[in-house]
Amino acid sequence: MKMALPFPAQRSSVLRAVSLLVILAGAQMPPGMSQTTKTSKVDTEKISAIRAVLDKQVEAWNTGRLETFMEGYWKSPDLSFFSAGRKVLGWDATLDRYRKTYQAEGREMGKLAFSELDIQLLGPEAAVVRGRWELVLKDGTKPGGLYTLIFRRFREGWKVIHDHTSSNQ
Amino acid sequence: MKMALPFPAQRSSVLRAVSLLVILAGAQMPPGMSQTTKTSKVDTEKISAIRAVLDKQVEAWNTGRLETFMEGYWKSPDLSFFSAGRKVLGWDATLDRYRKTYQAEGREMGKLAFSELDIQLLGPEAAVVRGRWELVLKDGTKPGGLYTLIFRRFREGWKVIHDHTSSNQ
Repeated sequence: MKMALPFPAQRSSVLRAVSLLVILAGAQMPPGMSQTTKTSKVDTEKISAIRAVLDKQVEAWNTGRLETFMEGYWKSPDLSFFSAGRKVLGWDATLDRYRKTYQAEGREMGKLAFSELDIQLLGPEAAVVRGRWELVLKDGTKPGGLYTLIFRRFREGWKVIHDHTSSNQ
Repeated sequence: MKMALPFPAQRSSVLRAVSLLVILAGAQMPPGMSQTTKTSKVDTEKISAIRAVLDKQVEAWNTGRLETFMEGYWKSPDLSFFSAGRKVLGWDATLDRYRKTYQAEGREMGKLAFSELDIQLLGPEAAVVRGRWELVLKDGTKPGGLYTLIFRRFREGWKVIHDHTSSNQ
């Protein structure tokens, strides 16, 4: 049973159109091209940019480049990483957790894959990403689970400001 | 190491000010009251409204009213609930999960408390809430963990559209 349309569907289009005018100040707008069409195009580009961050993370992980993987995260003490009831705060502590979990003696990074991706914009500069992760380890085991990522857009691009991961093990 | 200020701190203030003008169309603005002050007030009101939804949920839970607790969730097939690698889709399925987990034979709802609450607006109509949950059961055990909630604003008020919960057990 769907509720009435949320506010975003009504007012955000106005806001985004205004936002677009701010962004494109001085740029030519083809006559007859509706603001709705433009907004959709902008949103599609944002979703593609977020998707590119995730793709880059997977590629970095699967070539053992943890620091490059970490570039997808906001390099701030305010980054938060929740997993199995444990809260890790800050980019440095998050990198440290990844190192201990996947690069310590007897550990391995394995091959990472994301699936069931759902990227939803929550405003002009924020999005939530829901997805499933799976690792394939050398012995054939496949740890996996679900994640929720909050992205915000910075000068440097879209970055994860919060990650909540849970495992099905 | 903080990165440069995110876009929201720069452009959102413009957008929110415009949003405010849309909302308050026709209303008097006291002269000398800056848009920044007004924006903050609007944001504070939004955060209070979200906090009120959470408080109402805790009160409902602690008086055994699961259906009232569920009013905090978006009544839609698109609601998602992630927990321990398990994905539940839809309001009905989420209620069903709560019933099976906390109201089935031999189960109990216990007393619920939220702590370490962090409510962050992500746009004019969306927010992320990070927090810790704890239940106190009759036998004194205290299951708990962390949650991430995505809120969106609807005509009916602020509702959780996505919940990712993890347990420290």
